[in-house]
Amino acid sequence: MNNLNTPLDELITALRRLPGVGRRAAERMALHALMQRESVLAPLQSALTHAAAAMHNCAQCGNLDTASPCHICADESRSKNLLCIVPHIADLWAMERAGGMRLRYHVLGGVMSAVHGVGPDDLRIAALIERLSAPDHEISEIILAFPASVEGQSTAHHIHALIARAAPNVRCTRLAQGVPVGGSLEMMDAGTLGIALQNRVAVAA
Amino acid sequence: MNNLNTPLDELITALRRLPGVGRRAAERMALHALMQRESVLAPLQSALTHAAAAMHNCAQCGNLDTASPCHICADESRSKNLLCIVPHIADLWAMERAGGMRLRYHVLGGVMSAVHGVGPDDLRIAALIERLSAPDHEISEIILAFPASVEGQSTAHHIHALIARAAPNVRCTRLAQGVPVGGSLEMMDAGTLGIALQNRVAVAA
Repeated sequence: MNNLNTPLDELITALRRLPGVGRRAAERMALHALMQRESVLAPLQSALTHAAAAMHNCAQCGNLDTASPCHICADESRSKNLLCIVPHIADLWAMERAGGMRLRYHVLGGVMSAVHGVGPDDLRIAALIERLSAPDHEISEIILAFPASVEGQSTAHHIHALIARAAPNVRCTRLAQGVPVGGSLEMMDAGTLGIALQNRVAVAA
Repeated sequence: MNNLNTPLDELITALRRLPGVGRRAAERMALHALMQRESVLAPLQSALTHAAAAMHNCAQCGNLDTASPCHICADESRSKNLLCIVPHIADLWAMERAGGMRLRYHVLGGVMSAVHGVGPDDLRIAALIERLSAPDHEISEIILAFPASVEGQSTAHHIHALIARAAPNVRCTRLAQGVPVGGSLEMMDAGTLGIALQNRVAVAA
């Protein structure tokens, strides 16, 4: 850029804070927005304002919604027995896309990570224990939906230990591991294939 | 997403209008912005407002700047003899990054394209001819900085013909073609390599 410290640079810097946006992409975005003010810049401005005003974290599960409790927590047609714990809101959305189970959720807000300095106190663990300590809770099973990474699995392990102490009658489960749907064996990593082999299932007659 | 027609969806839709942003990337951006309001959403909001208010197209060259004429057109230390014609503002920025020449510019606003329905009247050609028709202009050379694509070269050809008619004394040049700096010959396409071979240059003794 030729003109430093201008409003254009301010815009490029602000766009770079979005995930996955580098310097060159931010320049293209800023230029595009400024050349297409009616169709790009103005809608983005008003959408940011609307979303900032309307979207809040659900006090119960941590989801982003226009209401708190969110529409999932408020949905009386969902089972109160099943609680699915996910690291991030995006994971909740992914679980909802998978559909079928009509679960209730608890968003932790991340996974424990020594590298990124995220400890148990940075996650919504206290809120989870509080949900489990309520005398009238109807939770009978908690699904730990964590990624199969070292950090994801150690967080799941930690949460599992806490649940066993706080609510010993609640059953804990985790997502099945194996070959993804549509994945070709040739392209699969050895770890996944090894686990899929170990956890092989009898073929129905 | 589970909640359609919410402010969140409005934000995702607005983000998708930025170049290179797909559905999943827009979701990640919206979520990140809403979770990091102080450091991401608010700065982006104010940067958009500032940039929309402050950045304008230079009436002379078409560049985006806080002033019109822009700081390049207003820069008296730049030669008035050399005018570089570029398709887009981003190309002007790229030429400035290349540095060295301290040129003046004229941004056409695109290239002619039958596929995209861009004709000569959609480009800032009239403004260019006007600059060349001014009795006191000091332009002696016009550099046609167009991409080596069919559309880029046919636009350059069209502009060249117009310049030859409007200002027959002005010399027209184009960017040299050849092997890019740092490019390995092995990875080069046959067209580029053929042109580089044809345009070979004597090695200084």
